[in-house]
Amino acid sequence: MNDTATLTANALSRFLQADDRQSIAAALRHEHPADIVGMIGEMPVQEMAQILLCLEANKQATLFGYFDHETQVELAAALERTDMARIFGAMAHDERADLFAELTEEQRNALLPGLAQAEREDMRKLAAYPEGTVGSVMTSDYATLPPAMTTVQAIAHLRRVAPDAETIYHSYVVDDERRLVGSVSLRDLLVARDTATVEEIMRRDPPFIRAEDKREDAVEVIRKYDLLAVPVINGGDRLAGIVTYDDAMDVAQEEETERFTKISAVSGVGANMLDASLGLLYRRRIPWLLILVFGNVFSGIGIAIYEDTISAHLALVFFLPLLIASGGNAGSQSATLMVRALATGDVKMTDWGRMLARELAVAIALAATMAIAVSSIGFVRGGPEIALVVSVSMVLIVTIGSLIGMLLPFLLSRFNMDPATASAPLVTSIADAVGVLVYFAIATMLLGLAG
Amino acid sequence: MNDTATLTANALSRFLQADDRQSIAAALRHEHPADIVGMIGEMPVQEMAQILLCLEANKQATLFGYFDHETQVELAAALERTDMARIFGAMAHDERADLFAELTEEQRNALLPGLAQAEREDMRKLAAYPEGTVGSVMTSDYATLPPAMTTVQAIAHLRRVAPDAETIYHSYVVDDERRLVGSVSLRDLLVARDTATVEEIMRRDPPFIRAEDKREDAVEVIRKYDLLAVPVINGGDRLAGIVTYDDAMDVAQEEETERFTKISAVSGVGANMLDASLGLLYRRRIPWLLILVFGNVFSGIGIAIYEDTISAHLALVFFLPLLIASGGNAGSQSATLMVRALATGDVKMTDWGRMLARELAVAIALAATMAIAVSSIGFVRGGPEIALVVSVSMVLIVTIGSLIGMLLPFLLSRFNMDPATASAPLVTSIADAVGVLVYFAIATMLLGLAG
Repeated sequence: MNDTATLTANALSRFLQADDRQSIAAALRHEHPADIVGMIGEMPVQEMAQILLCLEANKQATLFGYFDHETQVELAAALERTDMARIFGAMAHDERADLFAELTEEQRNALLPGLAQAEREDMRKLAAYPEGTVGSVMTSDYATLPPAMTTVQAIAHLRRVAPDAETIYHSYVVDDERRLVGSVSLRDLLVARDTATVEEIMRRDPPFIRAEDKREDAVEVIRKYDLLAVPVINGGDRLAGIVTYDDAMDVAQEEETERFTKISAVSGVGANMLDASLGLLYRRRIPWLLILVFGNVFSGIGIAIYEDTISAHLALVFFLPLLIASGGNAGSQSATLMVRALATGDVKMTDWGRMLARELAVAIALAATMAIAVSSIGFVRGGPEIALVVSVSMVLIVTIGSLIGMLLPFLLSRFNMDPATASAPLVTSIADAVGVLVYFAIATMLLGLAG
Repeated sequence: MNDTATLTANALSRFLQADDRQSIAAALRHEHPADIVGMIGEMPVQEMAQILLCLEANKQATLFGYFDHETQVELAAALERTDMARIFGAMAHDERADLFAELTEEQRNALLPGLAQAEREDMRKLAAYPEGTVGSVMTSDYATLPPAMTTVQAIAHLRRVAPDAETIYHSYVVDDERRLVGSVSLRDLLVARDTATVEEIMRRDPPFIRAEDKREDAVEVIRKYDLLAVPVINGGDRLAGIVTYDDAMDVAQEEETERFTKISAVSGVGANMLDASLGLLYRRRIPWLLILVFGNVFSGIGIAIYEDTISAHLALVFFLPLLIASGGNAGSQSATLMVRALATGDVKMTDWGRMLARELAVAIALAATMAIAVSSIGFVRGGPEIALVVSVSMVLIVTIGSLIGMLLPFLLSRFNMDPATASAPLVTSIADAVGVLVYFAIATMLLGLAG
């Protein structure tokens, strides 16, 4: 697959040098846009732009939509103004609005005159929704039907709008004031008798979502009801757009990447690891590492407080990494499970009390098991007194670590912060500092009494 | 929403006590199956079974398919044999095969006689594919078309099969030997002129996938080409089924949950956190915690080796948690980024050399920044010599930790293990042990020479 792509890319470059545009069009005629991007995506932007223009007019906008945002902006700058205006006019409405938001003022002004008035307003509306909302990922290329239409008329109407709508497999039934009253699938239209009206076969009160909701909510509704698309309602209760399943899949992937990297204390959403500049990787990783360095100073302070105990019983240092790591590990397990459960909606904010009781029960069982495991090592390495200190510390440290890991995501949510900020390293650092204090306090108490 | 569900659940229970089946049918007539499951999913299984049987016959199988596996198995045991056989016969083929795999031998034998011979074979075939393969998530409810059919005939055919096929929006064109020769969308059929043949308008060489491929590959192909469904080819190059976008979304979510929990060293796939039994949570968390306890003993051994250095310079212990945590944090960042990049296909196995060079460059920059941050603390706390030891150790520990985090996922992949097993806690434990050795070795060398 990769070899074929490279071969064709070379062939395309050669055709381009020979200015043989017909061969390029012929070579790409039956290729899927996703594959064409795979072939030409690494070329200089000028060559990409020339190859794009070799395609049939109606395929140029589709292909353009498959490039990533960065490349789209570069292509927009590289293409002639008239070519770009034509492509821009034919793009899917949601992709066009996204691109518009990324362009410079100058580029926008160059493109707008080529669009019809209605399209310009549509685009301004779509681009106006804040990042992260349903409005920012919805599209306005959908088909609507009036309730009184017959199924035959409806099918004929859908055949006419098919080339422009993003999906004709689900249509939305709206009243005279564009309020959503139902939804109907093309399958139901085809199966119904010819004289039935849309109103008779439509699904009343279909699932919908509001433009100002979080974009993840669209994913949840589509997944729950197995929809092809979910209709979006604006502040005035009118149909404003739809979110399609394929855009929802992309949103789900982006959200997961963000959560996945946050849990390991990497900031920002993940670019492609192979393409990201070294400077970008450095900037995404250093902030949390530095915060955690200063966070871990607290562990050091805990050690400084108990320096006398340590110098009197140097064997205690042997168990230090083991004990604090155990608290951190148990805590990062709880935090990850809780971040995930809050994200998928398995657990709600109001469940915190119930989750706390459950976590306490599981944590004590985990802690007891780990204390038994470590007590034998303690006995061999430091005798019965050290074994006692280490076991008691283990129970407390693992229990406290687990509870911190469980509660932190809830607390962050409570103060409207993303629970995934309770990353494993952050929980580990807090559990470390607590672990140091607990360990040496217990050691001082038990060994102090014994000595 | 939740309140409505509870109210209706109470109303349904009351109707059931009064044996008023018509009111139940009326109350649920316009509800989506996902919402009905939300209402009755918490009831005793006997009540659920009775409510299910109040619905119209054709809706029973659809509703049944929306319950989770566990509940399906319970319902199968609670329903009369003839009722269950009827529901079983009408279920979507992939859901039926999944359920079949979960039943006892006795339950299977009770259900099989009610099914037609062809259906029984179909189900045995679907159930035969191993867990995790494309075959295990595909369905055989799809529509095929012969190449020579006209578009009018094709649309008429699709109208007839619409009630049984999982999707009619994409059909697959097969030759006499059931080999896949093309795919055609209902949209293209509707837009084409009436006398065109399927062969003339179909897409040749459509994307496909093999039944024995990993099920994640189906998600990738559907996402890449924005498909509604991807056709599946068996070992004999014949069309064996399709994977639909909604099943692919479910697979993507399950895979993500698995990766997400593995990175925090929790074993097994996530059940719902609120419903999971305490015993299950304990069993999922304890294995890695115990492995990590014994892993961290190596850090203790490192400390034991250098006990003389530590007792001579007790201030070194102050920096121990900070230094080893920093190596672990940098390592868990690299591991998470790499696990994710390998999973999404952003990075391939053959890229390891290039990734190593990039990671080394970023790690040295991170390490240098952190060394500068920590040297000031070292100076204040222990004087210039300790500051030097701590800074040099920080550079080495962070660099080594990052490289371990980056390489471990590649190594695991190389030996056909899931790279996500390189969980953050595992990387942290390894980095901890290395960090202890590096720190005290450098301290012994530098302070030994100085003293």
